[in-house]
Amino acid sequence: MADPQIMNEAESPRDALEEGRLSGSFVGSVVAAIEAEDFEGARALVAPLHPADIADLFALVPETTRGLLAMAIGDALDAAVIAELDDYVRDDVLAEMSAREVAEVMTRLDTDDAVAIIEDMEADEQREVLDALAPADRADIEAALTFPEESAGRLMQRELVAVPETMSIAEVVAHVRAVTDPATDFWEIFVVDPARRPVGTIRLSWLLTTPPEIAVADIMQREQTLIPVDMDQEEVALQFQKYALISAAVVDGGGRLVGVITVDDVVHIIQQEAGEDVLKLSGAGDGDINEPVFSTYRTRSRWLVTNLATGIISATIIGLFSDSIEALVALAALSPIVASVGGNAGNQTMAVTVRALATNQLTEANTRRTIWREIRVALLNGLTLAALMAMGTTAFFGNAVLGGVIAFAMLFNIVIAGLAGVMVPLTLERFDADPAVASSVFVTMITDSMGFFLFLGLATLVGVEYLG
Amino acid sequence: MADPQIMNEAESPRDALEEGRLSGSFVGSVVAAIEAEDFEGARALVAPLHPADIADLFALVPETTRGLLAMAIGDALDAAVIAELDDYVRDDVLAEMSAREVAEVMTRLDTDDAVAIIEDMEADEQREVLDALAPADRADIEAALTFPEESAGRLMQRELVAVPETMSIAEVVAHVRAVTDPATDFWEIFVVDPARRPVGTIRLSWLLTTPPEIAVADIMQREQTLIPVDMDQEEVALQFQKYALISAAVVDGGGRLVGVITVDDVVHIIQQEAGEDVLKLSGAGDGDINEPVFSTYRTRSRWLVTNLATGIISATIIGLFSDSIEALVALAALSPIVASVGGNAGNQTMAVTVRALATNQLTEANTRRTIWREIRVALLNGLTLAALMAMGTTAFFGNAVLGGVIAFAMLFNIVIAGLAGVMVPLTLERFDADPAVASSVFVTMITDSMGFFLFLGLATLVGVEYLG
Repeated sequence: MADPQIMNEAESPRDALEEGRLSGSFVGSVVAAIEAEDFEGARALVAPLHPADIADLFALVPETTRGLLAMAIGDALDAAVIAELDDYVRDDVLAEMSAREVAEVMTRLDTDDAVAIIEDMEADEQREVLDALAPADRADIEAALTFPEESAGRLMQRELVAVPETMSIAEVVAHVRAVTDPATDFWEIFVVDPARRPVGTIRLSWLLTTPPEIAVADIMQREQTLIPVDMDQEEVALQFQKYALISAAVVDGGGRLVGVITVDDVVHIIQQEAGEDVLKLSGAGDGDINEPVFSTYRTRSRWLVTNLATGIISATIIGLFSDSIEALVALAALSPIVASVGGNAGNQTMAVTVRALATNQLTEANTRRTIWREIRVALLNGLTLAALMAMGTTAFFGNAVLGGVIAFAMLFNIVIAGLAGVMVPLTLERFDADPAVASSVFVTMITDSMGFFLFLGLATLVGVEYLG
Repeated sequence: MADPQIMNEAESPRDALEEGRLSGSFVGSVVAAIEAEDFEGARALVAPLHPADIADLFALVPETTRGLLAMAIGDALDAAVIAELDDYVRDDVLAEMSAREVAEVMTRLDTDDAVAIIEDMEADEQREVLDALAPADRADIEAALTFPEESAGRLMQRELVAVPETMSIAEVVAHVRAVTDPATDFWEIFVVDPARRPVGTIRLSWLLTTPPEIAVADIMQREQTLIPVDMDQEEVALQFQKYALISAAVVDGGGRLVGVITVDDVVHIIQQEAGEDVLKLSGAGDGDINEPVFSTYRTRSRWLVTNLATGIISATIIGLFSDSIEALVALAALSPIVASVGGNAGNQTMAVTVRALATNQLTEANTRRTIWREIRVALLNGLTLAALMAMGTTAFFGNAVLGGVIAFAMLFNIVIAGLAGVMVPLTLERFDADPAVASSVFVTMITDSMGFFLFLGLATLVGVEYLG
């Protein structure tokens, strides 16, 4: 169910682009044309663009212009463009279309793109669109929707070429000519046994370079990476990356071939999963700049409130030492430095650990070695920072005891930060929680509270009368 | 210069893997075999693995075991494995090999993989290896090394199939049979004019489904994404992702075809570039867990020292208000909360902005709208947190004036944090600096110092006598 016209896409005209992005002046002229109700002019500007650039354009124009833009460009807003739209922008655009029109668009897409569009809809809208589809397309999409979100089953397309191993190369070529829609791009042919279990693959280049009378069984690659239909998309992406796959067979619980995932679908996942870490660590949700303000507020405020709660721990610790602070206000001024440098050190270790876990580089085989590595790095950093802080404080306050106290607190807090930065994500991973999501809160809580506790506690222990 | 044996890789045996990673017990048995000097046994365990898994194994065993492991597995440590090794681990392994042996490995790799190995070597080692290469291979690699690091010229391979547009499909098929090394995988054929400028592409599936007498010019796709040889790899990755490319032609300044980049090379770049942000934002350098401790220390301590310096700004601001703190120690306890929540809010906005810039979603066309969006999110968050803080402080200290002061400080600091989180990365980008590298320092500096200044300043202005 792919549209032949999707196949031959023009690159966008060079004057609309600037370093690979639509230029501000181009977007400006489209908006100006629409505001002047010159829909012909807007269409003339937009129609030559590549669908991926038209999709970008919808994100770049103001929300209030999106409906008019859709109307103005008419059938240039085709299935290929809709498949490329940002999720939130697509909601805006689809809201203007009837269920029948949406179904029409979906008929022109591969299963995976059609599923991506329908899976985010409300249940009743989904029903309406499904009812408007032809039975065969509906069955494919309903089958895909039975798999968990973000699983291989949602990502795969059902359009593929599979042949029995008894065929000769000549027969395979004839079969490909007979059955494939010229618009469906494919890069590998799957060889299956009578029960439709994959037994090998043939790359298209081998079909071209092998004499026609040779049997498929003699040239196929027998070993291949099979993707279980319920595998998480992040794991799928790692498999593609590790084994440099172009496409891979997806199999059901019985080991039967049910679909194919191609690398161009996975490239999006890799980008998204790798970029997600930085957003999750900061508690910024999915961080889409097209998300409505209120939904962004809901996600972010949850983390800020959590941060407020953990901040109270620090405040309580500071409160414990109020007598010391009253006697020597310099303690209040210096303590945030100890907490902040510790927080930064913990953050560094945590970012490295989260990335190493996400890319399968940190496994039980090298956990102990990695922890020991982080301790050594933390000791070196701690000694450096402690020395600097001791010198600075001693010089500024003219008191070496105060310098010694802050240096000790700094050293210990950086070592604790290093340990927390590696242990917190590891522990979350061990309990099957996403280490990127909650690590930051715990690590900052530990480094902040330990920073204040170590410095103010040591100062009190030594006695403020020696520090002033 | 690719080795036929690289083509048909076995998937690694299932008992060595656990959720796609080498299991701890498998790595343990390899290490045990090597320590018991049972090199035969170690080889028997390792040889059936996929090259990508052998490369992982080298990273997972202790550094001191790597040399023995290389010796034990002998020729299972082939070019495909070396191409997959982590940079730091590869240094360890190559250090044990002679220049001639390294040259031998490089002969078996595509240009891009060979370049990736040689580009990190010291100049004299590089010279030795180049001298040991056959003249044709040396010329290819030397040509690639003339391009800037992380550019398309380093990433491309020179092995490709190019045909004139006057050929018929039958002639192209005959040409492909005659010239291509069966081990070189290719997915598209490039059509060039007599000056070798690309004029179109043909996907292999079209060769199969088109009648043999048709001319290339009639079925080729005329528009294609051309990659200039000096384009930065991050930009290359974005082009592949945006236009869902499988391979793309690389052209020199005169527009002539000089190489091809395939998606499997780009997948690594996408992973790496997208994951880099989180590491850069935290000041953790390239964050490779295989990097030696001292080199990690050097990178990280630089940021911690910068953080120390900016921390002194906060300390100075707190020092300005020492009279107020002396009069009311609660101010010292509460001020870190204002700074910390502001820092967190700034961090959220910054992470979103850095990702949006990295993925070309934030351009001059929507800058103003995005800033206005962040201000609204910050106002909502600020009002929520201010209300919570006002209630908590008033209840705990039984003083509504103190509650009001901290609420105002909180609200303003979160709005400033939102502005800093979006403006700092945008400004760095405007000055062609990498927004991921330095944003964190500036944003934290602003939110910390403004947090202390706003809260302590407001408290002093209102007068501590009303707050106690």
